[in-house]
Amino acid sequence: MNRKMVFYTTGQLVLLEAVLFLLPMLVSLIYREACGTAFLISAGIAAMVGVLMMALTRPKNRVIYAREGFLITTLSWVLLSAIGALPFYLSGEIPLYVDALFETVSGFTTTGASILPNVEILSRGVLFWRSFTHWIGGMGVLVLMMAILPPSEGDSGRSIHIMRAEMPGPVVGKIVPRVRETAKILYLIYIGMTVLNFLLLLAGGMPVFDSLLHTFGTAGTGGFGVKADSITGYSPYSQWVITVFMLLFGINFNLYYLLLTKNFRSALRSTELWCYLGIVSAATAVITCSILPMYNSIGESFRHAAFQVASIITTTGYATTDFDLWPQLCKGVLFLLMIVGACAGSTGGGMKVSRVVILARSAKQNLRRMLHPRSVRVVHFEGKPVEQTTLEGLSTYMTLYFFMILLGFLVLCLDVFDFETNLSAIVSCFNNIGPGFGAVGPSLSYAGYSTLSKLVLSAAMMLGRLEIIPILIAVSPSTWLKK
Amino acid sequence: MNRKMVFYTTGQLVLLEAVLFLLPMLVSLIYREACGTAFLISAGIAAMVGVLMMALTRPKNRVIYAREGFLITTLSWVLLSAIGALPFYLSGEIPLYVDALFETVSGFTTTGASILPNVEILSRGVLFWRSFTHWIGGMGVLVLMMAILPPSEGDSGRSIHIMRAEMPGPVVGKIVPRVRETAKILYLIYIGMTVLNFLLLLAGGMPVFDSLLHTFGTAGTGGFGVKADSITGYSPYSQWVITVFMLLFGINFNLYYLLLTKNFRSALRSTELWCYLGIVSAATAVITCSILPMYNSIGESFRHAAFQVASIITTTGYATTDFDLWPQLCKGVLFLLMIVGACAGSTGGGMKVSRVVILARSAKQNLRRMLHPRSVRVVHFEGKPVEQTTLEGLSTYMTLYFFMILLGFLVLCLDVFDFETNLSAIVSCFNNIGPGFGAVGPSLSYAGYSTLSKLVLSAAMMLGRLEIIPILIAVSPSTWLKK
Repeated sequence: MNRKMVFYTTGQLVLLEAVLFLLPMLVSLIYREACGTAFLISAGIAAMVGVLMMALTRPKNRVIYAREGFLITTLSWVLLSAIGALPFYLSGEIPLYVDALFETVSGFTTTGASILPNVEILSRGVLFWRSFTHWIGGMGVLVLMMAILPPSEGDSGRSIHIMRAEMPGPVVGKIVPRVRETAKILYLIYIGMTVLNFLLLLAGGMPVFDSLLHTFGTAGTGGFGVKADSITGYSPYSQWVITVFMLLFGINFNLYYLLLTKNFRSALRSTELWCYLGIVSAATAVITCSILPMYNSIGESFRHAAFQVASIITTTGYATTDFDLWPQLCKGVLFLLMIVGACAGSTGGGMKVSRVVILARSAKQNLRRMLHPRSVRVVHFEGKPVEQTTLEGLSTYMTLYFFMILLGFLVLCLDVFDFETNLSAIVSCFNNIGPGFGAVGPSLSYAGYSTLSKLVLSAAMMLGRLEIIPILIAVSPSTWLKK
Repeated sequence: MNRKMVFYTTGQLVLLEAVLFLLPMLVSLIYREACGTAFLISAGIAAMVGVLMMALTRPKNRVIYAREGFLITTLSWVLLSAIGALPFYLSGEIPLYVDALFETVSGFTTTGASILPNVEILSRGVLFWRSFTHWIGGMGVLVLMMAILPPSEGDSGRSIHIMRAEMPGPVVGKIVPRVRETAKILYLIYIGMTVLNFLLLLAGGMPVFDSLLHTFGTAGTGGFGVKADSITGYSPYSQWVITVFMLLFGINFNLYYLLLTKNFRSALRSTELWCYLGIVSAATAVITCSILPMYNSIGESFRHAAFQVASIITTTGYATTDFDLWPQLCKGVLFLLMIVGACAGSTGGGMKVSRVVILARSAKQNLRRMLHPRSVRVVHFEGKPVEQTTLEGLSTYMTLYFFMILLGFLVLCLDVFDFETNLSAIVSCFNNIGPGFGAVGPSLSYAGYSTLSKLVLSAAMMLGRLEIIPILIAVSPSTWLKK
């Protein structure tokens, strides 16, 4: 294993985080807040750690393989979160480090689960950093690094292994042959849509600061906001803008590239897109009907239904109403959407619509083969045959997914909460959604959990964001013992 | 498709049910109860239907394939339950037919979920039939038919397809080359163990009728009893006998054959056996410690823990205490055991320990292959390589398993109960356990659910018992349209 390269690349990333700290520092300066110092110290620590890691390793051999890609990704995300938690802790705004860590992991993984009973008492700088982590984590921080580093710094062999480990979904589609170019295009689309989202919120009369932070939360499908009651207090216009953009950020970004290159037909032929839109429409219809008696008009019910469906399926986690009070059927539908998740190659989490579709088709093919053993079995997706290794990887992912969720659920049962709270908490964190039901419902927080539970939930968020396998490989002893 | 053979074989089975009705009728006569008439009428109807089906079809071509095997199994189980519900309904002891159907499906599938708030008001004959369905369903009613029919009546080609469809587990192990002989040996072991169980309960001072019915419930890992508080009121001795026999009936019957043929080494080398015992021990230890403060002594805690663990992992569903009142951790452990289930080739339900082991090993192999793409991948189980088709079947089963449970959960959400009740109800029924948590806890019943929910839960019990695939194939239109 090329350990030097692992630590060197991780060091580069920590250095990038030092630079990123300067943005919230700037916000603190603008609002003349004391927390600016916390960001300065954090940036200093990050810079030191980063430079040290790079100086101590200086790899001559820059070739890496899948194993190193998984390791770099895991190590980067853990360090990024550990250091990213410093400003919360140093500013004293989150007094316990484990809480600060939970909040940061929740930020970078775009979960949006919070241990803060009331976010409105936080300073602007800290609020900015909290939401900004969503934006960074959404498209992937290593992808960002690849997009901005000069090409001489690494080779494309490195990039593809890292991108595979960091990007969600069963298969990684390179938009253009060069990985570095793909990363750049993805970020340009991401930035373009972010700006548009921001401008539209601003146009509706939302204050600049609120618009910016809600845009970060929407773009990363994260869910951190600035108000204790999430999006409830904003105008229906703002709520609709956020609904539409949550859905847009939950679509595979490759489709936007196809649209930009005027390849409309290919973009509109995407099975995943239509399944995704179909699920959203069906769920919205069911919920609109069930909650009709609770609101004044069909329009209002429809708005709340559409918002919550978009928020949960894209794993954002914003709320315009306390859906924990909705009828059991609505909660059942939302629970299913939590597991399905958004499209692959988007900023959303969950199992991904494409995985669900491939699993269903593969099951259908296998059923057929039980009746006709000699029939040739090929599962197709998006017009292409799905490779056998992809199918095997998928079944492995599924096994690990349910195994980890059940294991995490068991540890949460050590805590004081009930069945519904614990199960929805682990499913919500694992799928990077944020709120659950019961004691972790949208109007409440994760503050009541013990330190152990918070660590387990943090691990679940990380496992969900990196889709289990990179982390499992990184923590397996055989990875570290091998030369 | 050989439709004639499908209906002919199903007719044979219905005829067998007519004969089986004579046993509870005998019990009614002994206790001079009015319900005897209900059994006589039911037997008459069954005999008529059976004879008619056989007379109308008379197949010349007796060759069948996998498809017919699945169809025969599904159709037989549905008809068996529909007709088996008649005595409950005709005797007036269960006034609604849908309730009678639920109770019968619950009986044959060895679930043990009940819609009766108080079983103690039922007549002896009806109670006998209710528990006897467990015993019949436990080892498989078609397997029983194959064991008792004279060999000229069918061919071994038919038997293997039916046995594959009816016996639980990822692979069907034929004990001896001839399927009919295998069925006979299985039933002889089953009868032997049943008699032993009965005698041991009797020796502890349990009344004859109670001993017999609890033996049926234990042997089939069903869970129907004669008291409203299940096994709570019986002596610790009786509780321990039932604990041990639940565990014994949850072990693969092939191992007993190996023991009988003095092949001790092979029997003790079974991975599934050791995993099963390991899970039971670990779960019992955890629960004993957690419930210590609730009982008078370690011995009492240990007894309750061991009983409930054995009852849930073997999917029996008896209870010696209301485990819904236990700490959340215990409920979490029991929830996991519900999903794991007993060993393949036993009378227990659930996912089966062997499936869990093979899934875990397959995931491990796939992880290894992600790092070394050219490595050869073979998953071993019980000393043999697992075939690729078995692995594919397993992943299909898993996909369908979770899909069906989530779908069923969604329909239950239309009803009045809470998250915990609904999720534990569908998991409990699908895995053929019986009690769940909340409103379907061990001291309560399924009576409160609507007709729709009861039908969904009945379907779930059937899907769980026949392991999904036979039923899916039977209800798919392509099966019926094909010649």
